[in-house]
Amino acid sequence: MDNLFDVAVIGAGPGGYVAAIRCAQLGLNTVCIDDWKNGQGKPSLGGTCLNVGCIPSKALLESSENFERAGHKFAEHGIRVAGLSVDVPAMIARKDKIVKAFTGGIGMLFKKNKVTAIHGRGTLQKRADKDDSWEIRVSAEGKAQSVCARHIIIATGSTPRVLKSAPVDGMNVLDNAGALALQQIPGKLAIIGAGVIGLELGSVWRRLGAEVTLLEAQADFLPAADEQVAKEAYKALTRDTGLVIHTGVEISSTRTDEQGVEIEYVDRDRNAQKLKVDKLIVAVGRVPNTTGLGAEETGLKCDERGYISVDEFCQTNLPDVYAIGDVVRGPMLAHKASEEGVAVAERIASIRQGGADSAGHVDLGMMPWVIYTAPEIAWVGKTEQALKAEGITYKTGQFPFMANGRARALGETAGFVKVLADAETDRILGVHMVGPYVSEMIAEAVVAMEFSASSEDLARIVHAHPSLSESLHEAALDADKRAIHI
Amino acid sequence: MDNLFDVAVIGAGPGGYVAAIRCAQLGLNTVCIDDWKNGQGKPSLGGTCLNVGCIPSKALLESSENFERAGHKFAEHGIRVAGLSVDVPAMIARKDKIVKAFTGGIGMLFKKNKVTAIHGRGTLQKRADKDDSWEIRVSAEGKAQSVCARHIIIATGSTPRVLKSAPVDGMNVLDNAGALALQQIPGKLAIIGAGVIGLELGSVWRRLGAEVTLLEAQADFLPAADEQVAKEAYKALTRDTGLVIHTGVEISSTRTDEQGVEIEYVDRDRNAQKLKVDKLIVAVGRVPNTTGLGAEETGLKCDERGYISVDEFCQTNLPDVYAIGDVVRGPMLAHKASEEGVAVAERIASIRQGGADSAGHVDLGMMPWVIYTAPEIAWVGKTEQALKAEGITYKTGQFPFMANGRARALGETAGFVKVLADAETDRILGVHMVGPYVSEMIAEAVVAMEFSASSEDLARIVHAHPSLSESLHEAALDADKRAIHI
Repeated sequence: MDNLFDVAVIGAGPGGYVAAIRCAQLGLNTVCIDDWKNGQGKPSLGGTCLNVGCIPSKALLESSENFERAGHKFAEHGIRVAGLSVDVPAMIARKDKIVKAFTGGIGMLFKKNKVTAIHGRGTLQKRADKDDSWEIRVSAEGKAQSVCARHIIIATGSTPRVLKSAPVDGMNVLDNAGALALQQIPGKLAIIGAGVIGLELGSVWRRLGAEVTLLEAQADFLPAADEQVAKEAYKALTRDTGLVIHTGVEISSTRTDEQGVEIEYVDRDRNAQKLKVDKLIVAVGRVPNTTGLGAEETGLKCDERGYISVDEFCQTNLPDVYAIGDVVRGPMLAHKASEEGVAVAERIASIRQGGADSAGHVDLGMMPWVIYTAPEIAWVGKTEQALKAEGITYKTGQFPFMANGRARALGETAGFVKVLADAETDRILGVHMVGPYVSEMIAEAVVAMEFSASSEDLARIVHAHPSLSESLHEAALDADKRAIHI
Repeated sequence: MDNLFDVAVIGAGPGGYVAAIRCAQLGLNTVCIDDWKNGQGKPSLGGTCLNVGCIPSKALLESSENFERAGHKFAEHGIRVAGLSVDVPAMIARKDKIVKAFTGGIGMLFKKNKVTAIHGRGTLQKRADKDDSWEIRVSAEGKAQSVCARHIIIATGSTPRVLKSAPVDGMNVLDNAGALALQQIPGKLAIIGAGVIGLELGSVWRRLGAEVTLLEAQADFLPAADEQVAKEAYKALTRDTGLVIHTGVEISSTRTDEQGVEIEYVDRDRNAQKLKVDKLIVAVGRVPNTTGLGAEETGLKCDERGYISVDEFCQTNLPDVYAIGDVVRGPMLAHKASEEGVAVAERIASIRQGGADSAGHVDLGMMPWVIYTAPEIAWVGKTEQALKAEGITYKTGQFPFMANGRARALGETAGFVKVLADAETDRILGVHMVGPYVSEMIAEAVVAMEFSASSEDLARIVHAHPSLSESLHEAALDADKRAIHI
C-alpha cells in the first residue's frame, strides 16, 4: 500500500501540526489531515488558534491597545495627538496578513519536515488485522480518498458551544470568528460569556469605541482564577477598560433584525432585563470536536461531556490511537495541546523502538494560564481557594505593581503578583499575577515550579533592575515577610 | 554614646538603601548616610539609579517609544493621527514625578523599618578600641556631626568618568543627569560612548526627533555582549532606530559656544573628522566614588582602578567594614548592588549571632544584564566568544522573533534568543537575547541557570502560547536540533 504512513494526525491546530512535525523529526513517515477553510474558502492550516483564536486576537489586542494608549495615555507623556481615528478594515487586514503568514508558515514547516498534508475531513474507519494499520477516509468537496497509518493522533480541537437562546447568524450574532472580522466598530456590543474569549474580544472593541456589556451565567467572575486576582481584574476591567460586566445572568431569548439584536435576560437579582445592541458575540465556552470522526463506528470511547477518553499518556481505548488537545480532558489551551503533541510523538517513536514507557509526559498541574486583557492575567499552579478546599496549609507573598519601578515608568500600575508556598516546606504551590506583561512573567514561575523551587529560592535569585519581574522576586521575599519595597 | 548604631550604611542608592532596610528587618539598629541632592537642591534618597539612572531613563524611554510608535507604527495598525507633537517639558515633568515618588518612597520605607536617615557626606574616621565601633563624620552645609556604628557598609556608588577632551559644562556638554533633563529636543546630538547609557539616552532623543551620532572609542560595538547579539543590535539600532554609531573613534577636542559644540575626532580609519552638534552627552563609563570617604586616612585598601578591595563576601581589609555595589569589583548594575546589600546585611546579622559564615553570597556569574533600547538586549552567563576563549565545548540553540506569534502580533520581530549549553552535560552556560521585552524574558533564564538547568529541561517545560518566551523554549529545543517552528 503506497499510502501507508507511520503516523496519521487528524487536525492541524497547535496540537496536531506540532505532533506531526515532531513525529517527522523522529523519523516517522507522517500525514496530517485537516479540513479548515479560511474566509476565502481556502485550506488554512493552524486550526482555531492560528485562524480565529490566539494569533488574530493578539494582533487586534495590540492594535486596539495602541489606539487606547493614544487616546487616553499619551497626554500624560506630553505627547499631543490631533485627529485620532481608526481605519477598522486596515486593522483587520493587518490581522489577516499576520494570520496568513503563520498558516502559510505551517505549510512550509510541513514541507521542510516532509510531513504530507492532506486537505479534508478525516474519518477513522477500521483497523486491518493484517498489519495493524488504521484506515482513514479523507473527504473534501464531495471527493474521498483513503490513507492508512500504523498510529493515529486525533487532534480535532473544539468548536464554539452553541447557545440555543442565541443562535449565531454570522451577521448580528457572532462567534469568535465573526467577532475578529467586523469591518466597523459596533456602537453597542453585547457578549454572552465573560471568560477568556469574551474578555479579550470585549477589550478590543471597547478600546476602539464600542459600549461593551458582558453577560455571564456564572455567579462569580473568572472562577478558575485566584479569587483575589479575579477581584482585582474585575476592578481594573470595569474601571479602566470600561467594560460593563454582569454575572449570574440567565439569557432568556435574543431577537435579531436589521436594527440589531435585542437580548432578554434575567439578572442576578432575578429581574427580567432587556438590552438592545448592534452586535452580539456568543462566547460561552467550547466543546470538543468529534463530528464525523468515526468515533461511534470504531468504538472510540468518549466521556459523558463528549471528550475522547484518554489516559495520562493520551492513549485512547483503541490500540495505537491517541488523542490530544481540546478534544481530551484538561485545559483548552494551545500550549497544552502542543506539549501533548510532542509527548505523544515521542511516545510513538519510543514504542516503535521497543521502549514503551520511556518518553514524554505532560503535567497538567504545570500549565500556565494567560488572559490578554489590560491588565493581563496569568497563573500557574493552585489558587488560594483550591489550597483552602484541599486543606493544605500555605503562606502568601504579595507585591503590588504600584511599587515597581518599571511599572511606574510604563504607567501600568494596576495589579500585583502573589506567591503561594507550602507553610511547612516553602515549596511554591501557585503563582498568580494580574498586571502588565504578566503573560511573559509567568514563564519564570513555571520554570521555578518545575524545579520544585521554594519561595526562598526565588527570593535569593537576582532579578534585573528595573524590570516587572522584580515584582515576582518581591512577592517571593514577602512570603517570608521580608520584601524590601513594601 | 546615644548615637551608637549596630550598622552604618554610607550611601542610599540601590545598594545602600536595600542593605539598610535588610539590616533593620534583621533587628539591627541602622543608620543610612547619604548626601545626594536633587535638581532643586533638596536631599533625595535612591542614588544614581533612582535620581538620574535606571528609573528616569526608563520613564523617558517609554514616553519616547510611545511617540515613535505613533509616528512610525500606527499606520500599519490602521490608526490615523493627524497632528503629532511632543511637549518635552511635560515629558520631563512626568519623569520627575516618577522619580520623586520613588525617592520619597525610600524615605517612607526607612521610617517603616526604623532606619535612621542622615543627610550629609559620611567620612570614615577611626575605630574605637574600647567597643570596636567605628566613628563616621557626617558633614552637610558646613555643619558636621558624628555617628558611631559597630559595622560599616560602604555603598557610595560611582560617578560619571570625566573625559578631559570633553569637559561637562551642564549647558551644551552634558552627563547622564543633564541628558535626562533637557527641556527641548536638540536638532543634532552627539554622544561620546556607545555603552548602555549612551545607547539608551541616544534612543530617547533620536525617537523624539534629534539626529544622533554616537562616538565610541572601542573598536567593537558592545564588546561585553555576545558577538552575534551585538551585531544584530547594531543592525537594528542603526537601521530601525536611526542611530549613527561610529566605533574605534578617538576624541581629539571639543569646543563649545553659544551655537553648540564642535567635536574633533579621529575616526577608525585614522582620518581627522569634525562634527558640529547642538548638544553633546559624555557617557564614557563610570568610576567608583570614594571621594571624601576617608579611605586613605583609615587605610581602607583600594585597587589600582580606585575600587575598594573586597573579598567574595564584600569584606574590606578593615575589620567590620564592608563595601558593595559600584564601588567594588563586578558589574555596575543596580540589582547587583542590592543583592550584595542583602547578602552583607544577612552576614552581619549572622556574625552577631555567632554564626560567621552561614549567610548570603552573591554569584556574579548569574547577573542578568539589560539594555533598554528597541530592540532590548539582555543576557546572563557566558557569551559564545568567552566559551571559545576558555576552550569550553558547547552547543548553540537559536530562535528568531520573526517566527514567534506574539512578536508578529506586536509588530516587533527583530532579534532572536540564543541558548548556549555545555556540549557534554547540556547544562545551560549562557542565554543571550535581543528583541522585544527580553528585559523581562531574561528572568526565566536566570532561574533556569540558578537551578543548573540543561537545555533539555527548558525544552520540556511548557510555555504559554502566544508569548515571546516561547522563543526561549524554541531556542532550547534548537540546542538539540528539534525546534518546532524553524
